[in-house]
Amino acid sequence: MCQLLGMNCNVPTDICFSFEGFAARGGKTDEHQDGWGIAFFEGAGCRVFLDEKPAIASPIAELVRHYPIKSKHVIAHIRKATFGKVALENCHPFQRELWGRYWVFAHNGDLPNFEPARQGFYVPVGQTDSERAFCLILNTLRQTFPQGKPTLEQLYVVLQAVTQDIAHYGTFNYLLSDGESFFAHCSTKLCYIVRQAPFAAAHLIDEEVTVDFQELTTPLDRVAVIATTPLTDNEAWTALQPGELLVFQDGLSRRFAQHC
Amino acid sequence: MCQLLGMNCNVPTDICFSFEGFAARGGKTDEHQDGWGIAFFEGAGCRVFLDEKPAIASPIAELVRHYPIKSKHVIAHIRKATFGKVALENCHPFQRELWGRYWVFAHNGDLPNFEPARQGFYVPVGQTDSERAFCLILNTLRQTFPQGKPTLEQLYVVLQAVTQDIAHYGTFNYLLSDGESFFAHCSTKLCYIVRQAPFAAAHLIDEEVTVDFQELTTPLDRVAVIATTPLTDNEAWTALQPGELLVFQDGLSRRFAQHC
Repeated sequence: MCQLLGMNCNVPTDICFSFEGFAARGGKTDEHQDGWGIAFFEGAGCRVFLDEKPAIASPIAELVRHYPIKSKHVIAHIRKATFGKVALENCHPFQRELWGRYWVFAHNGDLPNFEPARQGFYVPVGQTDSERAFCLILNTLRQTFPQGKPTLEQLYVVLQAVTQDIAHYGTFNYLLSDGESFFAHCSTKLCYIVRQAPFAAAHLIDEEVTVDFQELTTPLDRVAVIATTPLTDNEAWTALQPGELLVFQDGLSRRFAQHC
Repeated sequence: MCQLLGMNCNVPTDICFSFEGFAARGGKTDEHQDGWGIAFFEGAGCRVFLDEKPAIASPIAELVRHYPIKSKHVIAHIRKATFGKVALENCHPFQRELWGRYWVFAHNGDLPNFEPARQGFYVPVGQTDSERAFCLILNTLRQTFPQGKPTLEQLYVVLQAVTQDIAHYGTFNYLLSDGESFFAHCSTKLCYIVRQAPFAAAHLIDEEVTVDFQELTTPLDRVAVIATTPLTDNEAWTALQPGELLVFQDGLSRRFAQHC
């Protein structure tokens, strides 16, 4: 199984603190040694760093840990291979373009026997069940809305339906973003915290590191961090419910009714 | 105008030496300060590093200069903005998936009044003429070969035709690769060198650096380096002819007849 880390904010923020603890799980405090990746949206643009090396041994992860790239939408992943060999093409997050926006996706869980017919536009490059799921999601969105991006509510309904279909095959925790909206789906395990004023200090579980966010923020900042399991031991993380699909925008989470 | 650097080899090779001289043109020995990028294929996988900062001031370029990533297909670009603001989404190389492979593209030149109708599948994310050209190329290939990747000869003929159409709008030097074949098109300025046994020492034009490739290679290695202008001052670079589209595979260049 893999682990997910996401961030959604109302102002561009660096993820160095959270990534420090998260990357430690890529071979130091946990066993996710089969590659890692992180995507940062900056406006419509997107940087994706990928490496098939363990996060704790990757020079690229070292760069990401210490180079404060500021972004409002970040998705990271550390991999423990189940389906698909250890190779660059199987590292998450995956990226495609839809409606003139980049879409980025990372998955935690296994989807045994999930072999959708290769129809539609997007075709997996690697061998993971995860990339197959991502391609099916994008093919479904494109086919449902051929004229372009619909309203968030319309998109949510279709995304939720295809997500439920895929989730029947196994465990399907994921993070998905196009740099405008940030989606988090919980199948079995996913939690989040929203940090906002009054900010306090936070202490990592996986590393002996404490950061006082009050020194680094303004009173208007709001930052949601989403992770497979809590990254800090002195904050109250909220667990998503199985089957729940949250939308984050500007660091705030939203739910839509099942049929709106 | 921008500058291009490409590499195609028969064994995975690092590009540190060539990138050292090339990156110096990103603000030190030349004026291409409006961003840069580099893509490395590793099997079917692809790493793309992008930065809107000048290459000489970018921590990510610093990593690429010193971290020997080995690849058989590399495309790099330094940007001097003409069309499109200085922003991450306008940095080359651009990447899309077609037929289950990643395709990567970088362009040198301007295409005034090139405004193709937004039809087909691929839609630009940024504002450059270059990304519009890349999307038109991929839309044309996809529409011509809906069943999947054709033979190299078939692909070449269609690529050459759409390239000629686009080149009517202005200057269209480009590098394009899917990690299997590597295409280099010369509209006005592009040159290459093939390094193979017996290897010798090479000296950069833009930096006081010499490398003796004999110490770093085996007798079977073959490396083609393609660049806007020669990177070394003690080797014989071959200029592509205007209108010429070369295919590189395993470090060897090939031409196909116009109508094969």
